[in-house]
Amino acid sequence: MTRIACCQLTVQPADPAGNGARATAAASAAVAAGAQLVVLPETATSGLPFADRAEALASALRPDDPLLDRWAEVVRGRDAVLVVGFAELGGSDADPAGDRPIFNSAALFDGSGLRGIYRKTHLWDQEKLFFAPGSQPPPVFDTALGRIGVAICYDIEFPELTRSMALAGADVLAVPTAWPVVPHPADEPTPEVVIAKAAARVNRMAIATCDRTGSTRGQDWTGGTVVIGPDGWVAALPGEDDVAVAEVDLTLARDKTLTPLAHLFDDRRPELYAEVAALTRREASGPDEPAGPGVVQPSV
Amino acid sequence: MTRIACCQLTVQPADPAGNGARATAAASAAVAAGAQLVVLPETATSGLPFADRAEALASALRPDDPLLDRWAEVVRGRDAVLVVGFAELGGSDADPAGDRPIFNSAALFDGSGLRGIYRKTHLWDQEKLFFAPGSQPPPVFDTALGRIGVAICYDIEFPELTRSMALAGADVLAVPTAWPVVPHPADEPTPEVVIAKAAARVNRMAIATCDRTGSTRGQDWTGGTVVIGPDGWVAALPGEDDVAVAEVDLTLARDKTLTPLAHLFDDRRPELYAEVAALTRREASGPDEPAGPGVVQPSV
Repeated sequence: MTRIACCQLTVQPADPAGNGARATAAASAAVAAGAQLVVLPETATSGLPFADRAEALASALRPDDPLLDRWAEVVRGRDAVLVVGFAELGGSDADPAGDRPIFNSAALFDGSGLRGIYRKTHLWDQEKLFFAPGSQPPPVFDTALGRIGVAICYDIEFPELTRSMALAGADVLAVPTAWPVVPHPADEPTPEVVIAKAAARVNRMAIATCDRTGSTRGQDWTGGTVVIGPDGWVAALPGEDDVAVAEVDLTLARDKTLTPLAHLFDDRRPELYAEVAALTRREASGPDEPAGPGVVQPSV
Repeated sequence: MTRIACCQLTVQPADPAGNGARATAAASAAVAAGAQLVVLPETATSGLPFADRAEALASALRPDDPLLDRWAEVVRGRDAVLVVGFAELGGSDADPAGDRPIFNSAALFDGSGLRGIYRKTHLWDQEKLFFAPGSQPPPVFDTALGRIGVAICYDIEFPELTRSMALAGADVLAVPTAWPVVPHPADEPTPEVVIAKAAARVNRMAIATCDRTGSTRGQDWTGGTVVIGPDGWVAALPGEDDVAVAEVDLTLARDKTLTPLAHLFDDRRPELYAEVAALTRREASGPDEPAGPGVVQPSV
C-alpha cells in the first residue's frame, strides 16, 4: 500500500516567498506524518490569475531556485515523492525579461532529488495570456513507489491524454490543480471529479488531485482535492486540515484484466478509432454546417 | 429541444418473439407519448447470456426479419428515431448454420426506414464466445433530430471511442446496454454511469443509455438507464414505468466553446498523445516488468 497525501492550500497573490514557505511546510508535515506520495496544488507559489505579466515574472521560479532545493530536501533519501506546481521561468538569464516564457509547471522530487519538470500542455482560459504551453508530453516517472505520471489540472479533462499516460505505464497520476468553481447540481460532485473518477476507472489507474482553496481576485476555487483509487472510487477527500490522505494499492494498476475474457487494454480497437477520426468534421466548420456524407456509416 | 425516451426492459431468455413484441410495444408507446428519440436495450430480443450457440442462432435476426419492419413502422413518416439492440445473424442463407457469424448489433430507424445497423466492436467478456466483433466503427447518422451516434454498452468505456464519435460530429450517443451489476459504493452511481457522464462532459455531447432490468440465469442487470445532457449531468432516470424521459437541447453539442479562450476540441494536443502513445509499454509485458528508460520524460 502507498500512503498518498494531497495538501490543498490557499495561495496568496503576489506572495511567492510566503506561498513557497507554506508549501514546503505542508509537504514536510505530510512526510513527517508518513505520507509517501505528496501532491501540492498547481501554481502553489505564484497563484493564479495574475494581475499582469510583471506579477507573473516576479513570481516565476527558475529550476535552480533555492525553493526547489528546499522541496527536494523534504523527500531526499526517503522512499517518498513530492509533486508540486509552480510558475517556471523559462529561457536564459541572458534573454530580455520581456522575451522569457513562463510555464505552468510541476516538479517531481524523489529520494534522489529533482527527477523532472513537466510544463502544462493544455492551458486553461486566461492562462494562455501569461503562460507558454509545454511542448513535451506529460512524463511518467519510474520511482520507488511505482510509476507516477504528472499532469496539471485541465490536462486530465482530455481523455486521450489520461489514456496515453495509462498506456505508458502510469500506476498513478499526480495532478496539481486549480479548479475554478463552476455550476453543478447540488447532489453531484464537481465535474472535474467526475472526469477524474472515470479516467481512473477506465484505465485502472489511481489519480491524486490537489486543488487550491479560498478565492483569488474574485475567482473561487473548488477545493476539489481527491484521492481516487485504481478502481475509480474516491479513497479520500480532504479533512478539516485540508489534507486528503489514503492508503492506495498501486500494484492493482499493473493488471488490466477485468475477467478471464475482458481486458481494459487488450479490448481496445485502435484501428477503429483512427477510422472514426478520419471522419472528423472540418475544424473550421460552423455549428450549422450539415453533416457530410462521410459521417453516416450504415452497414446495410 | 428533443424529447428522448429510454425504455428499459426485462428480456426473457429463449423468447425472441415475446421479447420482440414487448420491444415494439415499448417503442410504440414512447412515440405515442411524444418521444422523438427512443432507445431500447442491447440484445432486446435475444437476451444474454446464451445457454449455447443453438439458442443464440435461434434468437438471431436477419436484417430482413419482419420484426425489423415492425420497428421501422414505429417511426416511419415521423421526425422520430428508434435505436434498438438485437442479435444479428450474419453471413448468407447459403452458408452452413455452424459457420454463420452472429453479431451484437443495433439498428437505427428514422422516418425513412432502416438507416443502418452497427455491429458492436468491443465485445464484453463471454459475449466473445457467441458473437463476432464488428469490423466497422460506430456510425454517426445525420437525422432530422441531429447527428445520432450509435454505440453498444462496453463500447463507451473506451474514451478514445466516445471522443472519436464526438469529433465525427455526434450530438448525442444512443447506447443500448446490458450492464451487469458490479460492486460499487452505496453512495455512488454505477461505474458505467460515471464513465458515461464524463464522456458527455468532456465532449459536450448527450448520451442516452438504455439498460436491461431483472436478471438472467443468475446475472443481475443494473437498470442503469440514464439520459445525460451535453453538460454531463443526469437529465433523467427511469420512473416506475422503467422509462427515462428528458427534454434535451442537442444544439448545445454543436458549440464546443468553454470560454472565449478555451475550447474542448481546439485545446487538444493530438501530437502529444501520439508521442505518449509511442512510449506505450510492450503489450506482452508482464505486470512486473520494470519501466524502460523511454517511460521517463524529465525536462531538466
